[in-house]
Amino acid sequence: MTRFVLASASPARREVLRSAGIDPIVRVSDVDEDAVAAALPDGTPPDVIVVELAKAKAAAVAVTILDLSADHVVVGCDSMLLVDGELQGKPHTAEVARARWGEMAGRSADLVTGHCVLRYRNGELTAEAVDCSSTTVHFAKPEPDELDAYLATGEPLQVAGAFTLDGLGGWFVDRIEGDPSSVIGIGLPLLRRLLGDVGVSVTQLWGHPAS
Amino acid sequence: MTRFVLASASPARREVLRSAGIDPIVRVSDVDEDAVAAALPDGTPPDVIVVELAKAKAAAVAVTILDLSADHVVVGCDSMLLVDGELQGKPHTAEVARARWGEMAGRSADLVTGHCVLRYRNGELTAEAVDCSSTTVHFAKPEPDELDAYLATGEPLQVAGAFTLDGLGGWFVDRIEGDPSSVIGIGLPLLRRLLGDVGVSVTQLWGHPAS
Repeated sequence: MTRFVLASASPARREVLRSAGIDPIVRVSDVDEDAVAAALPDGTPPDVIVVELAKAKAAAVAVTILDLSADHVVVGCDSMLLVDGELQGKPHTAEVARARWGEMAGRSADLVTGHCVLRYRNGELTAEAVDCSSTTVHFAKPEPDELDAYLATGEPLQVAGAFTLDGLGGWFVDRIEGDPSSVIGIGLPLLRRLLGDVGVSVTQLWGHPAS
Repeated sequence: MTRFVLASASPARREVLRSAGIDPIVRVSDVDEDAVAAALPDGTPPDVIVVELAKAKAAAVAVTILDLSADHVVVGCDSMLLVDGELQGKPHTAEVARARWGEMAGRSADLVTGHCVLRYRNGELTAEAVDCSSTTVHFAKPEPDELDAYLATGEPLQVAGAFTLDGLGGWFVDRIEGDPSSVIGIGLPLLRRLLGDVGVSVTQLWGHPAS
């Protein structure tokens, strides 16, 4: 049996996996995301940046795995919103989130999610697969009182792009073009392919409890 | 305070609402969906059929509300998948689900969801709003062993179109064009607009426990 390790603190990613039949082992990396991004050459394309961050997270967690006799896949992800060519991470404050919504409302942006799958057998890295998923998100125009209420919940402050698709933000996303799970932070169809690339069929992972 | 009544047995619809801040009162209608559909004129367009079914469900539940002094919205929905111009409901058996996937794999289809919002104040119907949401779904091509495993879970048998977006089926949907919540069965951005049409701001409904 292959163990599935999610290298992310995101409850949303964990919930996507659980809803889709995988109860992951969760290990949180202490990667300094800003430092990783800053170390990349100027002009690094967004899809490369999120893949490099996903790789850093997966690699940082992989070295902490103690049970070297088991078969593991370690999965890292990183999501950012690309608005007018600028990558937007978490706003952290209500003021920044309000400014972001001022730019986004009634317009579209691209949510890019980098994925990295590392497979370890007997403590050795035996295969690696990485790729990026990009989805266009069309935002509604919340009424001023709706935006006030949304910001007051705190939900948009700690998420990439100042919105969620799977929470209260779902009321304010009119449509998407792409994979909705990748917008939440872990793209199921892409992950299925990457797992296949490292020799694991996703259906083998269904229904196995975390251990 | 306005009470939100969901006229549906679908756990997926309830979960979409709960994730988006509304814990609905759930009342299940006993509408004979086949009879409602059969009573419509031949050639009725799909978007009209699902709206008529949503209206029938909401109306059937509305008459069962006993506390006539409260302010209620009653919401009915109905979803179907349109494949090659044919509306597909629930497959019910693994054989039918397998045949559907034989048609759908690697291709696209349109998921249409009808919505009906009825507002009752002091036992009187004071406003009604209906509309349909349509989303294009692009299906992956599951490997034969993946399809076997998916059918064996039973998940696709009792859902419109023989797939879910929010469950195991999410592995086999490459992309969509439209609103993902409407694919799950209740479209949040459309519902937000319909609630506004009957005079209710969706943010007023957030965080209120079911009662």
